[in-house]
Amino acid sequence: MAAEQKKKFTVGLVGVTGYTGMELARLLSVHPAMRLVRVTSRKEEKRKLGGLHPFLRGFACGELVISPPDPEDLASACELVFLAVPHGTAMTLGADLLRRGCKVVDLSADFRLREASVYESWYGTGHKAPELLVEAVYGLPELYGPRIAAARLTANPGCYPTASILGIYPALQRNLVEEDGLIIDAKSGVSGAGRELKPGSLFCEISGGFKAYSPVVHRHTPEIEQELSSIAAKKLAVTFTPHLLPVNRGILATIYASLKDKRLTLEQALEVYSEVYAGHPFVRVLPAGELPEMRNVRGTMFCDIGVVVDQRAGRLLLVACIDNLCRGASGQAVANANLMLGLELGTGLFMPALTP
Amino acid sequence: MAAEQKKKFTVGLVGVTGYTGMELARLLSVHPAMRLVRVTSRKEEKRKLGGLHPFLRGFACGELVISPPDPEDLASACELVFLAVPHGTAMTLGADLLRRGCKVVDLSADFRLREASVYESWYGTGHKAPELLVEAVYGLPELYGPRIAAARLTANPGCYPTASILGIYPALQRNLVEEDGLIIDAKSGVSGAGRELKPGSLFCEISGGFKAYSPVVHRHTPEIEQELSSIAAKKLAVTFTPHLLPVNRGILATIYASLKDKRLTLEQALEVYSEVYAGHPFVRVLPAGELPEMRNVRGTMFCDIGVVVDQRAGRLLLVACIDNLCRGASGQAVANANLMLGLELGTGLFMPALTP
Amino acid sequence: MAAEQKKKFTVGLVGVTGYTGMELARLLSVHPAMRLVRVTSRKEEKRKLGGLHPFLRGFACGELVISPPDPEDLASACELVFLAVPHGTAMTLGADLLRRGCKVVDLSADFRLREASVYESWYGTGHKAPELLVEAVYGLPELYGPRIAAARLTANPGCYPTASILGIYPALQRNLVEEDGLIIDAKSGVSGAGRELKPGSLFCEISGGFKAYSPVVHRHTPEIEQELSSIAAKKLAVTFTPHLLPVNRGILATIYASLKDKRLTLEQALEVYSEVYAGHPFVRVLPAGELPEMRNVRGTMFCDIGVVVDQRAGRLLLVACIDNLCRGASGQAVANANLMLGLELGTGLFMPALTP
Amino acid sequence: MAAEQKKKFTVGLVGVTGYTGMELARLLSVHPAMRLVRVTSRKEEKRKLGGLHPFLRGFACGELVISPPDPEDLASACELVFLAVPHGTAMTLGADLLRRGCKVVDLSADFRLREASVYESWYGTGHKAPELLVEAVYGLPELYGPRIAAARLTANPGCYPTASILGIYPALQRNLVEEDGLIIDAKSGVSGAGRELKPGSLFCEISGGFKAYSPVVHRHTPEIEQELSSIAAKKLAVTFTPHLLPVNRGILATIYASLKDKRLTLEQALEVYSEVYAGHPFVRVLPAGELPEMRNVRGTMFCDIGVVVDQRAGRLLLVACIDNLCRGASGQAVANANLMLGLELGTGLFMPALTP
Repeated sequence: MAAEQKKKFTVGLVGVTGYTGMELARLLSVHPAMRLVRVTSRKEEKRKLGGLHPFLRGFACGELVISPPDPEDLASACELVFLAVPHGTAMTLGADLLRRGCKVVDLSADFRLREASVYESWYGTGHKAPELLVEAVYGLPELYGPRIAAARLTANPGCYPTASILGIYPALQRNLVEEDGLIIDAKSGVSGAGRELKPGSLFCEISGGFKAYSPVVHRHTPEIEQELSSIAAKKLAVTFTPHLLPVNRGILATIYASLKDKRLTLEQALEVYSEVYAGHPFVRVLPAGELPEMRNVRGTMFCDIGVVVDQRAGRLLLVACIDNLCRGASGQAVANANLMLGLELGTGLFMPALTP
Repeated sequence: MAAEQKKKFTVGLVGVTGYTGMELARLLSVHPAMRLVRVTSRKEEKRKLGGLHPFLRGFACGELVISPPDPEDLASACELVFLAVPHGTAMTLGADLLRRGCKVVDLSADFRLREASVYESWYGTGHKAPELLVEAVYGLPELYGPRIAAARLTANPGCYPTASILGIYPALQRNLVEEDGLIIDAKSGVSGAGRELKPGSLFCEISGGFKAYSPVVHRHTPEIEQELSSIAAKKLAVTFTPHLLPVNRGILATIYASLKDKRLTLEQALEVYSEVYAGHPFVRVLPAGELPEMRNVRGTMFCDIGVVVDQRAGRLLLVACIDNLCRGASGQAVANANLMLGLELGTGLFMPALTP
Repeated sequence: MAAEQKKKFTVGLVGVTGYTGMELARLLSVHPAMRLVRVTSRKEEKRKLGGLHPFLRGFACGELVISPPDPEDLASACELVFLAVPHGTAMTLGADLLRRGCKVVDLSADFRLREASVYESWYGTGHKAPELLVEAVYGLPELYGPRIAAARLTANPGCYPTASILGIYPALQRNLVEEDGLIIDAKSGVSGAGRELKPGSLFCEISGGFKAYSPVVHRHTPEIEQELSSIAAKKLAVTFTPHLLPVNRGILATIYASLKDKRLTLEQALEVYSEVYAGHPFVRVLPAGELPEMRNVRGTMFCDIGVVVDQRAGRLLLVACIDNLCRGASGQAVANANLMLGLELGTGLFMPALTP
Repeated sequence: MAAEQKKKFTVGLVGVTGYTGMELARLLSVHPAMRLVRVTSRKEEKRKLGGLHPFLRGFACGELVISPPDPEDLASACELVFLAVPHGTAMTLGADLLRRGCKVVDLSADFRLREASVYESWYGTGHKAPELLVEAVYGLPELYGPRIAAARLTANPGCYPTASILGIYPALQRNLVEEDGLIIDAKSGVSGAGRELKPGSLFCEISGGFKAYSPVVHRHTPEIEQELSSIAAKKLAVTFTPHLLPVNRGILATIYASLKDKRLTLEQALEVYSEVYAGHPFVRVLPAGELPEMRNVRGTMFCDIGVVVDQRAGRLLLVACIDNLCRGASGQAVANANLMLGLELGTGLFMPALTP
């Protein structure tokens, strides 16, 4: 294991019990240029990580002893820290770590919205570090790569926003579709709900079933609207309807937009998408007639995008598909950390889907 | 089993190997007023039905010997015949049975479209009994109950159309929404694809995954448009996107429509829906804030409908949910047969969902 | 609905929030000879049953208002009460109801073990109504039908014991196999764990996975041993290994026993099984070469049994399969109640499986 | 991507359409020391691999053009070839490739049984290269590592045998248990049945269900018996019962054996297991009280083993768990190829499970 001897960046992970924490541990356990040196959880303090998560037995990080989250200790031991804790908690801890010279990738919603007032109206609580909202970079590499590379603090995007924004970005940016009236009909696997004990997350409530939830009022709405408005250079509102799929991982968003030029052909639309995503290895624009499937992105950073033109209705349909835990959370967090540490975007992340 | 002695209508089932055939057998095996006396399949000829489908062992119909489909024999033995065979086959057999005095409920697409030319352009084959298209009644009881009761031939609706039409019907009929620009984002369980051997129907291709398929070009589109145009008294087109869910049964359609009066409240919308479906026991309009879940309709005739008003976008959202095999196919076929035989609509069909 | 006017027995259901409570409500909602008049839950008091369980909307029982469990009220309103509450709670409530003249079917473990000391050593708590252990009848109709019909108190069997005992009963009773060394390798769906919020019951912990749990020490062990010892007229011990399947419903037990006569043929074994279960419509002994599948019993009272002879090893293999919620709990409870009220065993229970 | 420039061994993959072919492609697409240069399939000839398997788009191997299997071409282009074709086909192709100087890892059953007569009686066809049965090494690295490293031809073990043999090996080798009377109750995910179009592999036949199949007569039986007999230095027979789980991947085998010394403690048993597997990083012996779960090995080479002592029955229970596609087929094939090419066993294979 000579590779193990190389200098690696030291990183910490705050909040290791949930699914995003587990996914971060999965990716960091074999990352060629980062070494996980701190894992924290108040509840599981003093256990070995491999005891809490037996899938990590046999890996170096499985031997780590879980500690309570202590900013001083984290900042002294880590060059960068991942925050996989609920919103509200992340903003104070993040501010503290930055002050101590540590870079931070925050997976919560705390630094995603640029205006504190919007945060407050959707999350029902005041923002305790509003000055950082200006500095935080929205961690979607295809849109903000260079700014992420220069950032101290990255706000890792939500899972639904990642799929939705990547799906619609070229069409809006190249002016193919009307800014108004966008519909995002999104379907997510259950891990997106986190690992909390909620009746609705029990196996028997979900297996063999399907439902919509939180239409119109889901908290990812303002995040999507902020970024799409920025792309369109015009304030816009979307209709966003999430649904809960009986699968562990994956998001597929079906997006409906009105074509500006009703004569636009599928070939033209695909050409725009291919151009915009040229040089972005983790976005795969599918050939005409092909649509994404969740299984082709499982466990990966890929966002697969299918494009359809509905000529009768004058609409562009976009189908964007990601793994909500990897691309939609922890994998994207590692990609952002890669950039922030001067590494290649895809370091430790370039692997094909586990399928079937 | 004194009830067994009562006079029952004799019925036949053509095509007993597939999922709609199995579901018909499930419902007919304990139907209080129909007796299944013929089950046919060319492939499984001479086997006992309970040998082919072990879940029917122990029931009278499990002892039936499968015969090849012979119109003369069927017509002499049965007062009504269910056709659960592929489109193309049903139209000739149906015509033959009608000629011999037998009533017919056809579960294929052969008699659903009123114009032979539309049938031909979507199904790619000429229609061999176009004269019956005028006579056939579209078997959606909430819309055509009295006509079904008087019919010799019922065209049982497709699964997606059943959910889509029931979901949008009150809004269109009461003029709440624009006729143009309707979007139906529908998600179906795998049994909707039938029991044929197709790579895409294998367990490992579907489990843990999700995808859209046949957007814009799915064959249920003309059927939906025919019925919605009839309700709206205006020719309209819809954008219809089907998706494949990793579940056995169920369809959930999320429907997006533009409000004519942007000030319409949720309460007003719900009142309209409740009024229109008053007296229709198999449609359950959910109270404000509740949305349908597939598990609540599994194995039943219910269509659960949730209503949402997106005031920011001036849209009405309708979420309609059915069991694709029961309400979307075989259960609805039995309901139609009930009416055609002078029975109550719900005879043998009023049972709650199997959940979990 | 003329049938609705008939005299029905009034029954109550204590504990309506869990899966066995839901399954009882499902079966009782359309039972032709029982009317559910009381449903209780401390936590959900004052809600309508159809509000708590939307799958019951549209049924008479969906209109029932949930009340707290009050023995006086229950006894005055009900001829028979089903107890679907945790062990420990059932024994006091059951005793109270009996005292007030109410018949009781208890779905908990409280009255299954005939000796209070065995109960105490496996459940870690003293028994508060040991005098009733003598009176309570173990509610397995194939073994104890006439005694159940005469009982005031039935102890409804556990789900694993139901499958295990029915699977091995003919072989032990007819002396085909050694009493010692029985192995029961059992696999259960997740609903068997109940509806409590436990990390291990979350969708993402179970979906796509499988595990064994509680080998050697599962609480259904003494119940199985008590009944098998009684059949064998000899105290015996079994090796019982439960496993957790990623399905909602179903138990399949694979049972290994040593043949007494190593020359026993499959035909002979099947003949014994068929004889023993002749006249028991809810046990289906499968023909040679067929093995049970969970989907063939889903939602039903059937126990399907497959028999295999391993001549090289001198073993008899028995594969017994039930629906853990229906046959393994609530359906069997209704069957017992049927007998206790003078009805036919299968009243309201004779329906085929929902498959697929 | 400097690493890409390093000298890599060239390898070929015969049979790329099935699940083992897909899994080989997944692992080889990012293998640091092998380059996939040939992928073959008669049926998919001339397509790009990334067109057939979209999850490989974006990887170098996705650009490979599928060719028909031509031994001459394969041998000239590849240092080693993986055969992922059905039994019967592999033996002639394997012999041909060896003759041309190519190393071969065969994933079929053709070279696993040392005696041609045993092969013929279980597979119903004559063996066409019996001379190679002596030379072929059974590719279970924990048992045959040094011999594999020296081999030209490795017979990759079956999935059930891999889990079964690894589970029982220490107990037999160290004489803890009786050689006779072993029972292996094994449960496998559906990918083990391959990607052929069989009714029993359809989603709706499997989802939500479970069954046993082929008890006593499954073709993996002689393979398990051959290896266990070799370990025990005594001819033995096992009772092997496979079951089909509604999951994509994974095997869990529950093994029952009689203790020679009934006083053996769990600690003693665990010590033996830990000793035997010391230095074998892909076998994880779990601590007392823990049992394996499929999700902890998904997508990996790990075999997790849990040990239980049933003192009342004098039995040792072993629960062994692997990913049937990775450890049970393609991952193990890559591990064997690693050894045969002089690489470390775990090259390109040391990664944690994808969970959830």
